[in-house]
Amino acid sequence: MNFLSDNVWGPWPEMLEAVTTASTGAQRSYGDDEVTARLGARFSEVFEHELLIFPVITGTAANALALSSLVPGHGAIFCRDGSHIAVDECGAVEFLSQGAKLVTLAGDNGKLSPDDIKSALARFQRGVVHQSQPAAISITQATELGTVYTPGEIAALGKYARDNDLKLHMDGARLANALAHLKCAPADVTWRAGVDVLSFGATKGGALGAEAVVFFHPEDARDFAFRQKRSGHLTSKMRFLSAQLETFLEDERWIRRARRANTLAQKLAGGLVEAGAELAYPVESNAVLVRLPDSTVARLRSKGARFYDWEAPKDGRTLARLVTSFATPESDIDRLIALAKG
Amino acid sequence: MNFLSDNVWGPWPEMLEAVTTASTGAQRSYGDDEVTARLGARFSEVFEHELLIFPVITGTAANALALSSLVPGHGAIFCRDGSHIAVDECGAVEFLSQGAKLVTLAGDNGKLSPDDIKSALARFQRGVVHQSQPAAISITQATELGTVYTPGEIAALGKYARDNDLKLHMDGARLANALAHLKCAPADVTWRAGVDVLSFGATKGGALGAEAVVFFHPEDARDFAFRQKRSGHLTSKMRFLSAQLETFLEDERWIRRARRANTLAQKLAGGLVEAGAELAYPVESNAVLVRLPDSTVARLRSKGARFYDWEAPKDGRTLARLVTSFATPESDIDRLIALAKG
Amino acid sequence: MNFLSDNVWGPWPEMLEAVTTASTGAQRSYGDDEVTARLGARFSEVFEHELLIFPVITGTAANALALSSLVPGHGAIFCRDGSHIAVDECGAVEFLSQGAKLVTLAGDNGKLSPDDIKSALARFQRGVVHQSQPAAISITQATELGTVYTPGEIAALGKYARDNDLKLHMDGARLANALAHLKCAPADVTWRAGVDVLSFGATKGGALGAEAVVFFHPEDARDFAFRQKRSGHLTSKMRFLSAQLETFLEDERWIRRARRANTLAQKLAGGLVEAGAELAYPVESNAVLVRLPDSTVARLRSKGARFYDWEAPKDGRTLARLVTSFATPESDIDRLIALAKG
Amino acid sequence: MNFLSDNVWGPWPEMLEAVTTASTGAQRSYGDDEVTARLGARFSEVFEHELLIFPVITGTAANALALSSLVPGHGAIFCRDGSHIAVDECGAVEFLSQGAKLVTLAGDNGKLSPDDIKSALARFQRGVVHQSQPAAISITQATELGTVYTPGEIAALGKYARDNDLKLHMDGARLANALAHLKCAPADVTWRAGVDVLSFGATKGGALGAEAVVFFHPEDARDFAFRQKRSGHLTSKMRFLSAQLETFLEDERWIRRARRANTLAQKLAGGLVEAGAELAYPVESNAVLVRLPDSTVARLRSKGARFYDWEAPKDGRTLARLVTSFATPESDIDRLIALAKG
Repeated sequence: MNFLSDNVWGPWPEMLEAVTTASTGAQRSYGDDEVTARLGARFSEVFEHELLIFPVITGTAANALALSSLVPGHGAIFCRDGSHIAVDECGAVEFLSQGAKLVTLAGDNGKLSPDDIKSALARFQRGVVHQSQPAAISITQATELGTVYTPGEIAALGKYARDNDLKLHMDGARLANALAHLKCAPADVTWRAGVDVLSFGATKGGALGAEAVVFFHPEDARDFAFRQKRSGHLTSKMRFLSAQLETFLEDERWIRRARRANTLAQKLAGGLVEAGAELAYPVESNAVLVRLPDSTVARLRSKGARFYDWEAPKDGRTLARLVTSFATPESDIDRLIALAKG
Repeated sequence: MNFLSDNVWGPWPEMLEAVTTASTGAQRSYGDDEVTARLGARFSEVFEHELLIFPVITGTAANALALSSLVPGHGAIFCRDGSHIAVDECGAVEFLSQGAKLVTLAGDNGKLSPDDIKSALARFQRGVVHQSQPAAISITQATELGTVYTPGEIAALGKYARDNDLKLHMDGARLANALAHLKCAPADVTWRAGVDVLSFGATKGGALGAEAVVFFHPEDARDFAFRQKRSGHLTSKMRFLSAQLETFLEDERWIRRARRANTLAQKLAGGLVEAGAELAYPVESNAVLVRLPDSTVARLRSKGARFYDWEAPKDGRTLARLVTSFATPESDIDRLIALAKG
Repeated sequence: MNFLSDNVWGPWPEMLEAVTTASTGAQRSYGDDEVTARLGARFSEVFEHELLIFPVITGTAANALALSSLVPGHGAIFCRDGSHIAVDECGAVEFLSQGAKLVTLAGDNGKLSPDDIKSALARFQRGVVHQSQPAAISITQATELGTVYTPGEIAALGKYARDNDLKLHMDGARLANALAHLKCAPADVTWRAGVDVLSFGATKGGALGAEAVVFFHPEDARDFAFRQKRSGHLTSKMRFLSAQLETFLEDERWIRRARRANTLAQKLAGGLVEAGAELAYPVESNAVLVRLPDSTVARLRSKGARFYDWEAPKDGRTLARLVTSFATPESDIDRLIALAKG
Repeated sequence: MNFLSDNVWGPWPEMLEAVTTASTGAQRSYGDDEVTARLGARFSEVFEHELLIFPVITGTAANALALSSLVPGHGAIFCRDGSHIAVDECGAVEFLSQGAKLVTLAGDNGKLSPDDIKSALARFQRGVVHQSQPAAISITQATELGTVYTPGEIAALGKYARDNDLKLHMDGARLANALAHLKCAPADVTWRAGVDVLSFGATKGGALGAEAVVFFHPEDARDFAFRQKRSGHLTSKMRFLSAQLETFLEDERWIRRARRANTLAQKLAGGLVEAGAELAYPVESNAVLVRLPDSTVARLRSKGARFYDWEAPKDGRTLARLVTSFATPESDIDRLIALAKG
């Protein structure tokens, strides 16, 4: 019963097949291979837009490289206070960008709105050399709290970003889960809504380890290849990352598999609520954040359930985060619910 | 007939099996998995020394992270002028180390000796704040020119490093090829000879993509995990990198497979010499650097052979580099030789 | 009537004399001169502690170099949300430290207390590689809002820092004003209260431009000289910075002159309150933060008074900051008060 | 008898007067003052070109900030192997540029020519992501060896730079000495010859401490102010730096005073040659590099002469560097020569 994260699970069987298929023969290295060549076209098709794509190995690399391409060292990036880039990447954005500043903001349900950013932005004076200069907004889709931005919410941020001369970055480590929830086109929550650069995640969704930075405007990617190389993120046998990304998109499997994870999360949330838990946030993707009595938490763990405390216990209850995956056995859900019900 | 590099080839079949085997079930992420747990012990056994090992995805990451752990931003690193860190990593060491300086030196047969370093070191004044401070030596084993340091040559550098308060780093992207040539223990060319940190390469030797930073002295690794994380090099599903590294070492297969590559290089070199080529360097690993008539170069390429010019053509001859791999078909060697002979 | 900042005023006449005196003859450069040699002893005497002192030209340099010496790139620094390092230095700390994170906290009257830090610190997990690691607290004395920490308040932070394995840094750009208010020994608010490193300011207090980084524990300064050099902050004719710093301390003049500025601030605050202004913070140094009717603000400015809006106007009133200096003519104070009274 | 460097001497009396004059009253800080406002126009007049000027406190800051503005982190800068940026700034360029690479080249008489750069440039492949990308040439005028580029030599480099899409930077720490030698207009060796950015030095020539980065093309300075601020190099009381720079240019005094230093160097060189010394380089500015018998070196030092060994003693002779200044007493020259003659 492992609900720690979706990255605790292995890959889809198709990933292994794809890597095996890509293994034959000699291919040019560093991305000049046939698989990677196909990948750009495939992504363009899926996203209905011309784009540039750079496969990398981790989401942290995708985020930090993407943002350091968008933002100068004297830039400020507006993001939610609990966002992955702010609290789970050990300062990678600050490091790779040579000092850009993350301005962390509170936001309802793990989401930012233009209103959340407005007063923070007002504190910055453009062109005043003493202050980091507003340069980008970064949002996570689906959010770290399991909620999902609607296309309209993102479009509002996109418009706000354009109006205020900011770039819009999306951490899409769980974009598939968001799309499975929204049932809209990938374009609707990305470039069409004003997203300039996307950290596209496949690892959590079922790859061995493959992410990509996707630029919807080639001019933003001008120096990216050099940045990727000199940070050690240009893989020689890139075809194996590309093969995973290609497989991920095939037959909308990325979204279909994410849907299963989402469905399991719904079931889990429903069962836990019946067992007396209180949902902390709407369950819109594959993460369930619930307040459980500390005794329940202890019982679940004693029976082998693994999940994170999201906040320190308080008043006899703990905010727990449970994440489901395409690979989570449904029986684990059933068992956890049964245990929670005591 | 692809002789561009050994990284143009796919993985050993065993790599795919290992990854498949590691795919089952849930495992803690970020290296707290069972495969990675076994890996340290396995490496200790093979290297006959306690050590700390950090899997990463590229050799550039391994080198730049290793050196930036050893050397402060005001440090100077002595290396050969054609070394990978100096000419093929786009300034990764300088970037990740926050400005350390590579002091590039000429050296016979692609190797450095204490004598090569001596006069450069003498130009630095210790403790004088205007100058970068001598901090490390970095060597490549096997070298970028296909030659191999003997244990004695490395031990001399190790002694020199210790005597001069320098750390010794080895870029071992092709360490397997060196060991296949030397028929000595891995320890003999690493810690026993004074190497402090090793960039251990498996990608070129037959992984899908897996390298490791190996610290023989834990105190040198003090901040490494944070450095790895904030540069985006801590993989969540690390078990798949670890599985490759484990497989690489199994049954000395890393060395046995490298031996095949070396043998093919010998055959290739012999054939080319018969065809009138001039060997530029002793062929001790899997790279053959030969001077070929420009007409031969053109003929080989017109028939589909791929390899790099290592220097611009001069006086009717070109210095070409041809790299063999465990996966190079022997028939490719035969065909290339036949073509060279005209 | 310039109340924009204390750095709008020129130097004390004694500064010019000191620089002139130091001008004679040849002296070793880069700090190996006689004036700088005397400076360490003089500071030790004044601070009653052994220390290392490094003169620099700006407070931003002092802060960023001091903190980047104390804190690794993966470190987190706790500071107030309106602190100079957080909002007025364009990311200098992040830049020079290679990515350290400023954790900005609210605090009463511009001051931090252990309680303000406690819950923020609790969100960080020590040794967990995904998170920047708590490394230092930085406070400003006197604060950016004109208030002053008591020795007891600093000692509480010092104890908290030690108990939690954090370093304590003080931005002392206006330390003289704080001491003039407190009437205690410099030691009482620095090392004796647990401060590890001090950014000592003389520019605002009456130098042409001279600050210093003061380390109370030599081991913290280990790499400092190199850091100073490679950031371009090692001046060749350092004697002229040192002469200013020496003059600053002479005969307690730094504190006596600061006292005049403080007294003028008191008078100004009193007069403005009589004129109907509301003090936003206790006036304990040389900055007066008052809420004035927008009409008053406009009238004052139309008559030539210069000062900053500290926040955007709201409900018909503006939070204004007025800073006094040793050099502010008392008649300017009188005139401003008269104008405010209408 | 101090010949260690020209920065061992104090300022011109006029510098002290200028600083005193600038001391009166309140002025906007951070460069928005009246003196700095005049400075741009003054420099434009002297250099006969529109330009942007940024005063800073050290030559290392000027060089590293100028080059990091011109060159990305993946850029390569061609410079002489003994240039100040390469050997006397502790990696400041690499640090502030986030990893740019200095390609150090040999050059006759301390000068680079297009031919010296040509073969190094040929080793870089444009657009190949594995390599740092050629981005700038940096030269020193007058050179570290006391020689001076003619306008024609610089124009040749300027043309070469333009033809090869490189920027041209000049470290002009001793530009005044070069101009005193050449008797040409400042424009002739700067923008008119293709120099894009100049590190303008006044400290060595007679300031208390004042340098400036001069951009001849405003677009190159786009981010400069932010870079200056976040590296701690934006001084609050900038008027005192600006006053020095203004005074430096007044009545061509910078060149006239440099001429005295040059003349003394000529006299010194002549006398030493008579005493049996061998000039290592033509004496064209205020530095004399001579080979002296070790016994002479010892005798001179025993009598109080101070100067640097430029290379380790060899075959009984030492390469010594002696630098003269506007302030060097002529009697010191006479005495040194007499001592050398023994």
